[in-house]
Amino acid sequence: MPTTLAEFEAVFPQLVADLTDHCRQYNLPENATNWYQRNLEHNTVGGKCNRGMSVVDSAALLKGRDLTKDEYFRSATLGWMVELLQAFFLVSDDIMDSSKTRRGNPCWYLMPDVGMIAINDAFMLESSIYLLLKKHFRQESCYIDLVELFHEVTFQTECGQACDLLTAPEDRVDLDNFSMEKFTFIVIYKTAYYSFYLPVALALHYCGVASPKNLKTAHDILIPMGEYFQAQDDYLDNFADPEKLGKIGTDIMDNKCSWLINQALARCSPEQRQVLHENYGRKDKNCEAKVKVVFNELELEKVYQQYEEKRVGELKKMIGEVDESEGLKKEVFEDYLRKIYKRSK
Amino acid sequence: MPTTLAEFEAVFPQLVADLTDHCRQYNLPENATNWYQRNLEHNTVGGKCNRGMSVVDSAALLKGRDLTKDEYFRSATLGWMVELLQAFFLVSDDIMDSSKTRRGNPCWYLMPDVGMIAINDAFMLESSIYLLLKKHFRQESCYIDLVELFHEVTFQTECGQACDLLTAPEDRVDLDNFSMEKFTFIVIYKTAYYSFYLPVALALHYCGVASPKNLKTAHDILIPMGEYFQAQDDYLDNFADPEKLGKIGTDIMDNKCSWLINQALARCSPEQRQVLHENYGRKDKNCEAKVKVVFNELELEKVYQQYEEKRVGELKKMIGEVDESEGLKKEVFEDYLRKIYKRSK
Repeated sequence: MPTTLAEFEAVFPQLVADLTDHCRQYNLPENATNWYQRNLEHNTVGGKCNRGMSVVDSAALLKGRDLTKDEYFRSATLGWMVELLQAFFLVSDDIMDSSKTRRGNPCWYLMPDVGMIAINDAFMLESSIYLLLKKHFRQESCYIDLVELFHEVTFQTECGQACDLLTAPEDRVDLDNFSMEKFTFIVIYKTAYYSFYLPVALALHYCGVASPKNLKTAHDILIPMGEYFQAQDDYLDNFADPEKLGKIGTDIMDNKCSWLINQALARCSPEQRQVLHENYGRKDKNCEAKVKVVFNELELEKVYQQYEEKRVGELKKMIGEVDESEGLKKEVFEDYLRKIYKRSK
Repeated sequence: MPTTLAEFEAVFPQLVADLTDHCRQYNLPENATNWYQRNLEHNTVGGKCNRGMSVVDSAALLKGRDLTKDEYFRSATLGWMVELLQAFFLVSDDIMDSSKTRRGNPCWYLMPDVGMIAINDAFMLESSIYLLLKKHFRQESCYIDLVELFHEVTFQTECGQACDLLTAPEDRVDLDNFSMEKFTFIVIYKTAYYSFYLPVALALHYCGVASPKNLKTAHDILIPMGEYFQAQDDYLDNFADPEKLGKIGTDIMDNKCSWLINQALARCSPEQRQVLHENYGRKDKNCEAKVKVVFNELELEKVYQQYEEKRVGELKKMIGEVDESEGLKKEVFEDYLRKIYKRSK
């Protein structure tokens, strides 16, 4: 049985206690310790926790049985580290993107009394990962591998973010900056490594089956799956029913280097390119509508559906060929794909 | 012979090459790789490098001989990691403090085209430490100790920064927030760990003499030395000749939780406290002058000189009692103290 959000969330208070205890050892003044606790709770809890729960679910699938209470706690602790890593990125991305809301609340840096302290708060979320790794995994033979995995995925995500920020600055629209290569780099580095590869790689280490071959197999399936997931996300931003999606897409007005705009650029006539050039990335509903017309003329909905079928076929083929002899399980990937395929939100 | 800045700086280009090569393995687009290189060079080079060079000098003193070329390179690599850690803090502190200049140039976030990308750039400076540790120290038995040392000192500095930001927000002056305890916490955590303890702890690990006892001795001498250094820094900000200091002190107007204001609060009459209350932390030269009058009435110059003599006496006593039987050398600490005592800038 896959884990539930309630079970997963029930682990977090213990981790907060570990982290605030560490601060008390330093004699960090009470108001700063309370601030840290509020930072942890506000920014790490409240999302869907798909990434974090994947660590638990993957561990159970790899072991082929229900987890003991202790195994649940330890794999969920690793899962919460993925959520802490994401919280670190989201708190800082929201500042860099001048975002206004996150999970229905004002972004952390816009909350009363926070402001630019949010930058240091983001750092402390990142540091929390390594405090927890040291406290709970120091005795494990995979400890240094876990530490290095977080370091590498963090740097990869930062490289993706750097490329994204340099390719699509909000204030300067230039479609010549975009390319399918940059799109792919950004998706893989900014999203796929930490959202898809990291949770499974952690579960492999946790279960003692992180052989180089298993890690490579996981990488070779999960990175394209993350690419597909982001293409789908970009498709839904424009083509999904906002009611079902739960939000109104803003990628066109936000000048996003999305899958759709890159597909459009690869297919458009000079006249259509001119329309995109004049209207993409403007905070104006009329401009957005003109871009949407070009997307429809180019039948991007159909282009996406063909892409999805092709990509899902490739993924299924790769999953079917997974060598389970070193402890890897196909179900780990089937489980991921099932959650993504034909989702509408 | 102590190392020179020119020798130390000559090591950095190789490290930049290591880091940008790593990005090229990722196929990070050229413009983003060039950006990373500019980030590294602009923010890490150009300071006095006292902290980084201390690693090299301490290693030579611990070995009791000149370093070989390879030893120089490796200890300087550790030294540059301290400088990278500092660059990570300074780039982000400048945003959090709305600072304008750094080392005579505009702060990085105020440079053309940078802006809030500076936050991600700061992250990449931090990540660079672990990329270099992995590349150059992975084979060493002290590798995990080095990684954990950087993690812990990073978190300690973040705790110090959190306390500082919460104690002395620039926009809300409240002297009741200040206390000698908070001052001491901020100084130790925000400055002393990374500036004083970290370089020597790295040298101890590098030289293979990082026994728990040696680390504790280094800690117990260098943390009070860092406290003394910061008290001196705060004293110089107000009492030094700006010509000699090379800058005009702004701690009073900036609402800094400094050694002087905390000494003043501990000694002032109710009337003097009222003057401090009304004038500290205002961006107004007349207010600043009134605070300075109170500082002079309280004879803080003399108070500082007595503090300095007492603290230096204690440090010399501790250094005299250092047990060298596990490979530690008194000269490491004597060298530090000599650089600080009675400095005028």
